[in-house]
Amino acid sequence: VRGAPAQYAIGLDLGGTKIAAGVVAPDGRVVAGAVVPTPVAGGVEAVLDALAGVARQVADAAGVALSEVVGVGLATPGPMDPEAGVVTFAPNLGWRDVPAARLLSERLPWPCTLGNDADAAALGEATFGAGRGARLLLYLTVSTGIGGGIVLGGQLVTGAHGAAAEFGHQVIDPAGPRCRCGRQGCLEALASGPATARRAADRLRAGEASFLTELAGGDPAQVTAVMVGEAADRGDLLATEVLAETTRYLGIGVANLVTLFDPDRVVIGGGLANLGERLLGPVRDLVRREVLPPANRVEILPVALGKSSGLVGAACLAWTASAGGR
Amino acid sequence: VRGAPAQYAIGLDLGGTKIAAGVVAPDGRVVAGAVVPTPVAGGVEAVLDALAGVARQVADAAGVALSEVVGVGLATPGPMDPEAGVVTFAPNLGWRDVPAARLLSERLPWPCTLGNDADAAALGEATFGAGRGARLLLYLTVSTGIGGGIVLGGQLVTGAHGAAAEFGHQVIDPAGPRCRCGRQGCLEALASGPATARRAADRLRAGEASFLTELAGGDPAQVTAVMVGEAADRGDLLATEVLAETTRYLGIGVANLVTLFDPDRVVIGGGLANLGERLLGPVRDLVRREVLPPANRVEILPVALGKSSGLVGAACLAWTASAGGR
Repeated sequence: VRGAPAQYAIGLDLGGTKIAAGVVAPDGRVVAGAVVPTPVAGGVEAVLDALAGVARQVADAAGVALSEVVGVGLATPGPMDPEAGVVTFAPNLGWRDVPAARLLSERLPWPCTLGNDADAAALGEATFGAGRGARLLLYLTVSTGIGGGIVLGGQLVTGAHGAAAEFGHQVIDPAGPRCRCGRQGCLEALASGPATARRAADRLRAGEASFLTELAGGDPAQVTAVMVGEAADRGDLLATEVLAETTRYLGIGVANLVTLFDPDRVVIGGGLANLGERLLGPVRDLVRREVLPPANRVEILPVALGKSSGLVGAACLAWTASAGGR
Repeated sequence: VRGAPAQYAIGLDLGGTKIAAGVVAPDGRVVAGAVVPTPVAGGVEAVLDALAGVARQVADAAGVALSEVVGVGLATPGPMDPEAGVVTFAPNLGWRDVPAARLLSERLPWPCTLGNDADAAALGEATFGAGRGARLLLYLTVSTGIGGGIVLGGQLVTGAHGAAAEFGHQVIDPAGPRCRCGRQGCLEALASGPATARRAADRLRAGEASFLTELAGGDPAQVTAVMVGEAADRGDLLATEVLAETTRYLGIGVANLVTLFDPDRVVIGGGLANLGERLLGPVRDLVRREVLPPANRVEILPVALGKSSGLVGAACLAWTASAGGR
């Protein structure tokens, strides 16, 4: 098959502030990479120009011939129609119904394939990262939001309308805080970075003493989840309690996923995954303890590709498309 | 392929109190059926003898030749290893590690295939019932327990350890009542038949007036979910409130499933599904209102095969096996 892993693919991971790009070798190595700012203010055309520019830039840097690249995979946030190549809605970019795959193809000598960023990262980890060899992999990203992807036998499972794996929008406490999706007590509203920071800030405002006040320069609104992790590391009580709540909520959410899907592997990435075992340890314990066997035998691991999961996965989208997968 | 839908299959649905059996035609029709009691007290051998006996009985009643039956599918409750044909644990039957597929094959002239009862019902509805034509079907049974099955492109998805689709054991309220699985606030502990009856009984014991007292012969312990439905039908306030809580919990659980899996169809069966639109209407409304598009476009329907979902699905297991699927 033309383009089966004998050739390179270019992966583009488009975010609201920056674009990560890379030429990915058939063994998953990023042979040349670059990160450039996303020119959101310039509108759709400027962003597409920037994507095409950085794709050419990494191809040049890698020194691969035009014919050695099978295609370009573009990972973008938010709802989309991957088959039509259209980004339905991306609030961070201000996009609505943008035919991104076609617009990018017109600017480049390679075919372009579109995919959801969390799906792409799941595919990247399944193919070359911590999900390698898994029969059923759930990938979870815990950051500003909580999202994910499902990979069954090496293939993405995207649901009937391309909207599966919205892991952050399962309700785990009907009396919990309102989520930006409109539901109440979603996992994202309880265990994301901002949710963690908000719970800490609320307690500072209520007058509780914590090292976080110093870390945040005296302004509770400046508290971040990273600061909560740092303060907990130094033994700060408030931060330790807030972090324990976050890991408990995340544990309940992951235990639910394990109960519903019965994966053999769960891989966790995103900003909060930088907390490492401080986050993963309690999640793993709760799943072992609360989920019935045999499902509780699941392995729970951090990502192996770090920040490259998305762009490596975007390259995988291009390989899949070139092999006739889409 | 030998046994592809040109021949009959026998479906056996084994429960703790009765066995439902039927010869199923390639178009899904049950051409001869029977229900016999499960001789649990007689032990494993007595139950296997009863299964073999009723299989022969329905084959005779259908008047099909021995060679016209491709095989027997046996659906049993609880955890199992379908590939090994072993029922791991079935508390209602008192079974542990019973090689049911082999024991049944030894008693019959046909090959036997084992499957989980909720998985079988899902497959039956997907193939011949309310799930026909669905790309991704979730089947949910709401009864004494809450379970289910996942069918993707006509194939069962059973997870990495055969334990997927435990839909009743997602935690939707961490402060909720203890579930028999050990977790707190599982959907099953909030929206099953016994959970519904218990909430009503608790209020009767607390002295609230309700028509349920009369229906239950003055003993709150005798209240059932069916009685709650009946009393709500007659305008009883307590019963109406309890039923509204059940439908709300069930709605939250189904909305979670729709968010996580993005199915195009959800089919609901089990004893509580007899409440019909009184149960399904509010669930449908909550999903439409709370789940983000496009996933909220999912169709939510009652089962079409009634009590036969399980045995028709068991027959489907036999067809799948004979076609080389297992």
